[in-house]
Amino acid sequence: MNEVRVSIIGATGYAGVELARILVRHPKVKITAMTSDSYKDMPIDQVFGHLRPQMHRLPSRLVGHGDSDALSAADVVFTSLPHGHAMKIAERIVEEGKYLIDLGADFRLKDASVFRSWYGTEHTCPDMLSGAVYGLPEINRSRISSLGATGKSGGGRNSTGRIIANPGCYPTSVILGLAPLVQAGLVPQRGVVIDSKSGVSGAGRGLSLKTHYCEANENISAYNVAGAHRHIPEMEQELSALGKKGIKICFSPHLCPMSRGILSTIYVPVGPDVSGEKGSEGSVLVGNGEAGNDGRLNGKSAEETVYDLYQSFYEDEPFVDVLPPGLPSGTGKRGGENLPRVKDVSGTNVCRIGMEFDYRTSTIVLISVIDNLIKGAAGQAVQNMNVLLGFEETEGLLMAPAYP
Amino acid sequence: MNEVRVSIIGATGYAGVELARILVRHPKVKITAMTSDSYKDMPIDQVFGHLRPQMHRLPSRLVGHGDSDALSAADVVFTSLPHGHAMKIAERIVEEGKYLIDLGADFRLKDASVFRSWYGTEHTCPDMLSGAVYGLPEINRSRISSLGATGKSGGGRNSTGRIIANPGCYPTSVILGLAPLVQAGLVPQRGVVIDSKSGVSGAGRGLSLKTHYCEANENISAYNVAGAHRHIPEMEQELSALGKKGIKICFSPHLCPMSRGILSTIYVPVGPDVSGEKGSEGSVLVGNGEAGNDGRLNGKSAEETVYDLYQSFYEDEPFVDVLPPGLPSGTGKRGGENLPRVKDVSGTNVCRIGMEFDYRTSTIVLISVIDNLIKGAAGQAVQNMNVLLGFEETEGLLMAPAYP
Amino acid sequence: MNEVRVSIIGATGYAGVELARILVRHPKVKITAMTSDSYKDMPIDQVFGHLRPQMHRLPSRLVGHGDSDALSAADVVFTSLPHGHAMKIAERIVEEGKYLIDLGADFRLKDASVFRSWYGTEHTCPDMLSGAVYGLPEINRSRISSLGATGKSGGGRNSTGRIIANPGCYPTSVILGLAPLVQAGLVPQRGVVIDSKSGVSGAGRGLSLKTHYCEANENISAYNVAGAHRHIPEMEQELSALGKKGIKICFSPHLCPMSRGILSTIYVPVGPDVSGEKGSEGSVLVGNGEAGNDGRLNGKSAEETVYDLYQSFYEDEPFVDVLPPGLPSGTGKRGGENLPRVKDVSGTNVCRIGMEFDYRTSTIVLISVIDNLIKGAAGQAVQNMNVLLGFEETEGLLMAPAYP
Amino acid sequence: MNEVRVSIIGATGYAGVELARILVRHPKVKITAMTSDSYKDMPIDQVFGHLRPQMHRLPSRLVGHGDSDALSAADVVFTSLPHGHAMKIAERIVEEGKYLIDLGADFRLKDASVFRSWYGTEHTCPDMLSGAVYGLPEINRSRISSLGATGKSGGGRNSTGRIIANPGCYPTSVILGLAPLVQAGLVPQRGVVIDSKSGVSGAGRGLSLKTHYCEANENISAYNVAGAHRHIPEMEQELSALGKKGIKICFSPHLCPMSRGILSTIYVPVGPDVSGEKGSEGSVLVGNGEAGNDGRLNGKSAEETVYDLYQSFYEDEPFVDVLPPGLPSGTGKRGGENLPRVKDVSGTNVCRIGMEFDYRTSTIVLISVIDNLIKGAAGQAVQNMNVLLGFEETEGLLMAPAYP
Repeated sequence: MNEVRVSIIGATGYAGVELARILVRHPKVKITAMTSDSYKDMPIDQVFGHLRPQMHRLPSRLVGHGDSDALSAADVVFTSLPHGHAMKIAERIVEEGKYLIDLGADFRLKDASVFRSWYGTEHTCPDMLSGAVYGLPEINRSRISSLGATGKSGGGRNSTGRIIANPGCYPTSVILGLAPLVQAGLVPQRGVVIDSKSGVSGAGRGLSLKTHYCEANENISAYNVAGAHRHIPEMEQELSALGKKGIKICFSPHLCPMSRGILSTIYVPVGPDVSGEKGSEGSVLVGNGEAGNDGRLNGKSAEETVYDLYQSFYEDEPFVDVLPPGLPSGTGKRGGENLPRVKDVSGTNVCRIGMEFDYRTSTIVLISVIDNLIKGAAGQAVQNMNVLLGFEETEGLLMAPAYP
Repeated sequence: MNEVRVSIIGATGYAGVELARILVRHPKVKITAMTSDSYKDMPIDQVFGHLRPQMHRLPSRLVGHGDSDALSAADVVFTSLPHGHAMKIAERIVEEGKYLIDLGADFRLKDASVFRSWYGTEHTCPDMLSGAVYGLPEINRSRISSLGATGKSGGGRNSTGRIIANPGCYPTSVILGLAPLVQAGLVPQRGVVIDSKSGVSGAGRGLSLKTHYCEANENISAYNVAGAHRHIPEMEQELSALGKKGIKICFSPHLCPMSRGILSTIYVPVGPDVSGEKGSEGSVLVGNGEAGNDGRLNGKSAEETVYDLYQSFYEDEPFVDVLPPGLPSGTGKRGGENLPRVKDVSGTNVCRIGMEFDYRTSTIVLISVIDNLIKGAAGQAVQNMNVLLGFEETEGLLMAPAYP
Repeated sequence: MNEVRVSIIGATGYAGVELARILVRHPKVKITAMTSDSYKDMPIDQVFGHLRPQMHRLPSRLVGHGDSDALSAADVVFTSLPHGHAMKIAERIVEEGKYLIDLGADFRLKDASVFRSWYGTEHTCPDMLSGAVYGLPEINRSRISSLGATGKSGGGRNSTGRIIANPGCYPTSVILGLAPLVQAGLVPQRGVVIDSKSGVSGAGRGLSLKTHYCEANENISAYNVAGAHRHIPEMEQELSALGKKGIKICFSPHLCPMSRGILSTIYVPVGPDVSGEKGSEGSVLVGNGEAGNDGRLNGKSAEETVYDLYQSFYEDEPFVDVLPPGLPSGTGKRGGENLPRVKDVSGTNVCRIGMEFDYRTSTIVLISVIDNLIKGAAGQAVQNMNVLLGFEETEGLLMAPAYP
Repeated sequence: MNEVRVSIIGATGYAGVELARILVRHPKVKITAMTSDSYKDMPIDQVFGHLRPQMHRLPSRLVGHGDSDALSAADVVFTSLPHGHAMKIAERIVEEGKYLIDLGADFRLKDASVFRSWYGTEHTCPDMLSGAVYGLPEINRSRISSLGATGKSGGGRNSTGRIIANPGCYPTSVILGLAPLVQAGLVPQRGVVIDSKSGVSGAGRGLSLKTHYCEANENISAYNVAGAHRHIPEMEQELSALGKKGIKICFSPHLCPMSRGILSTIYVPVGPDVSGEKGSEGSVLVGNGEAGNDGRLNGKSAEETVYDLYQSFYEDEPFVDVLPPGLPSGTGKRGGENLPRVKDVSGTNVCRIGMEFDYRTSTIVLISVIDNLIKGAAGQAVQNMNVLLGFEETEGLLMAPAYP
């Protein structure tokens, strides 16, 4: 495929417009339609002035979500709308032999009853869930590209899966942050704590007192803590699949006074007395409950062991960047702490991961940062499209963002 | 004592100037000296314009830290300087029968060897550590007021303790956030995770790239994670004393793009299989490992039980404000989440605490917010002074801050 | 009057709640009612957590705007609502012998036809306009206190004026910034340029895309430029009255990414060739068109002359703070620039004014800063009340705000 | 020239690193050296993490400013250092037949004595000033490209000019904002007021209390007002040359709480009585002093006339974007105000200009916005290089920045 025609359903939300920004510079893509009900018939650069230099490569006007050509003229349809919308048009897209990349939540969960319990609504095409692929390329790359390969045989609803469920923003930072440990069997089924901090764009472009400048500025708040956030089931689904055992996490998201970015701090307890499970996951790190020793097993410190796991897991990944830990000292003070900051990846498709080991409490502390609208949404969607269609995976995504 | 004369050693840092701002409005206080080496001889309102309306009640000019009158003319000396300074003048202050309230770290730790290992320097008056009181009034009120009572008998180094060690900002939010649970025996010796987010003023007024506007803005970063932050030993010292057992915490501070405020998210695992300890702390909450049940024991949900503990512990406290939890629903969605935000307490001496229980992972999630410069520093110092001298505890501290 | 009973009609906007915050600490005031239609029946501290330490002195619950007791139980009624509301209840308030202090625009303009042309609606009680006083105490103090004195003779609609029109936020910064020059006859009828920068709270607490965090953050925008802003007529009305000639200004407001504060930069051209008017206003400063000379007339530089005017005009004012200019050098570089910043007055009722003279273009440049919600709204309203009722003018207003 | 080799002298300031970010994606450029004394020998992505995805195309390590290869291996040398540095190496660069594009101030002013009086230091190669071109392509495009054409004949100090002086950030926004009016003779020699607002990155990456997060946040301040800012002489030099008469401006810069962007509000009085000059510049807009009429001359309103001037002046410009004015109404309220915001151009090389006409005071109000580090520095430098070397002018500059 030399040039792929794409449409963006829901182009005036923050993720949708980011998708337009990335796709318009993609050398193998032509954007044939962008939809918005709120700004229907307007040129997109009147809504988002930053796109003006690219208008010659964008559709001249927005059309409504229901515009028929928006679907029919595209090879790949991106949906960036609240949950419940993509499932309504998925059948038509698939039957016409197109691909759907959904930035919403409709196809992320394999189990329709889990979807119902977390989203409070019935899934309207549950039979399509099993064929959809959870689009985290670092974990599911081969499944995504298989979708593309078999998809070439043509359309028809039941012929093949043609849907990629783009992960949520928090899950991207968390699953990538935990995957190597999970695969190595070092994550216990219970006991992992994840504390995530997000910029305000994660709350969307809709109006609410929560996102009023004066209320969000000089403020931080936790929300949906203690098992209430809808991103939990997709995190647990993917981590459990990877770890081949049921993993439950305690997850707390926080709203922070910045426009973009997510920093997830992930706490993984190790050692047999903590995990409470058979076997002893932590023993490879700290021996049999010997937390507090010099922390070296086979000549490596615990953080070196963890770092090696991550380096090895991600060594060929273009969009995951693992930082080596600093060296521990004996006294509680450490030299050379080397942790990622939100600003380091802001404007890129990169997930950057750092780590330290807390010998005092036998806890691995991981810091995972992403740009919530790029690796956490639009950039990852384009990465999925690249894998799906056999393009170079980094095509259109080697961004050099402005700093500061 | 009708009017107490105070001096502020180190008045041009952010905590020092906040102390001046609060004390200048205190009806029983006269500020006799404010010191600064950097701005020596300048009127304070040329350094901090916001104090101009109060200049008639403030010393006309700053003097150097070593100014002799700064100590001699005061009944109470507040030191707001990096660690190592207060211990140099403590002897003289005590010998002259004055009180020292140190906002730095010199007198917080009881054990001089612990001080040495975390601060990398020898304590110069280790014999004065045992007499100093850790000034968290909600925990140590009677010891603080005893100091005042016995202190009236006059000076002399060995006669009596005359030093209050004002807690660090993070420890204030954390210890208050955990105290009722610790006292109730519900906090395990290991497994507690504390994830704190602080505004930039916590890093002080000194210059560094980290606090450059363009670097801190649109950014979040973790630092001193995995057992490296110097506030850890004072938190563990006080929690262990309160819990009558050694408690170790995994603590991660984060720098956030706002001037003021701390939000600490505290995770306490409960249940026998998690704690790994003899007995079963969590059983009062979730029965014997029955997490995932309806969560009611004796007709109360786990969060109701926790809330009752906090209400009871803090019911007479003027500066701790406990929010009732929202009600859990069966599906992962909850109604009526009721969590504190940094902005709710910004500009006040209040610590506000909210809580939820995560039934999926048997974890108590506590959110504790303070203004880092008030309850986390200057306000608490004044509260300590009030208790010490027998003033009304809220005197000068019932602030009505600007919003937003 | 020992204790005055006040009600706040519209207490949950940013100016209204700031009024509550200030009045609750005022030793001679009892707040008898606070109204809000949006949050009717709720305790105010559930809407604004920062008021919690003051709840014992506030009404326990909000009532609706139309609540009858809200008016009847008060001696002074503050209205903090969009224009059009205060005029509906003004008659009743005045007839019952109470005072009305309106933070809105209903009684600021003397001419009902001017009101109509700028606000697009008919004034419903135009006969009450002439008796209302424009409440800028530094300019109209004696008229405000006269209102109080004669008001003691009792109510009845026509008996006397009982209404104070609290100035707009921009006009407060601008009129105070220009008054001494205007009175001295140094401001030409045309040619003054005013460029104001405001924080987002000036746009209110209502929701709009303009105040969405992600849109206001990292952004500045001009709005209502070129004679379109509704604060223009009140500025021109008061400046013209003070200058005894018609003065027209070119005014541009800007929205800036901060919660609070206004900085107005005011440009006044001087010299006969610039003003184009008879006489020669500027000659006292720069001689007869001799701009570019050493700038000294009678041994004083132009900025010294201007500074002396301001010092003299405001020397007894508790809430206006004039900064001396820096010294000019010959080359375009100057030493000792001394200009006010928004943060210097944030949280206070102070208007701080600085000035420099541009010899190259014969322009006086004035910088005037205020807190838009205090001196620009609620604080000034309380100052007006103090003058009106014969209280100490600074009562309740010598705030020591938090910094930073 | 197929691929040009460039070096960046001063690559770790904000403008320098932005230059690296843009040049690394330029298809015809190879960056051969990047210098920094502070971070010498470090890989640039350890200083600026956002460049990591581009490291394969960047030099592996920073070298010192004085590194010999940094100059010798390049065809074009970009200097991004404080004034005084570029003049030291200019001779060598020119003699070796290379080009120098200086982002500093060393070659912007034609008159060495003006340089001395504003920068307080002697120019060390004043004979090279006349040959240097002020690199604002929209004004001086042909001179820039001539430099490139004649430059091909080889090096030698006196052979030809080889230096482009990249404009300051404020001057870019101001000169582009005024040029069409100046050329049309509508700008008076005195009376223009320019009020500029800049983000903090304009103050550089160096440390100062002014750029401390807590001091810049929630603050606005004016600085270098009244003829004190060093960007004034270059603005007046270029505007005077364009207008063929001496033009003096009153310029005030302000520091605002955002990382990036400049918004300049420009006030141009029109009409014979205001300008005080012979002839009557404003008459084309408002007739002979008839300000206040219906504003239409030859069937066009004043703002339409101004807009047509700008449209015509900039119609072929890829990086200047003119917004049509809104329609005036008769009452002071206007519909459809259409003014540029900083965020619209943030991350792009675009200067966006909007305009309104104030009939009440006969003043043209222009709003000009740029990204201070792109069109105000690094982007414009690359644009200059493109013109100089005959590349497509937009090469490497059609950025699609992230929003929000």
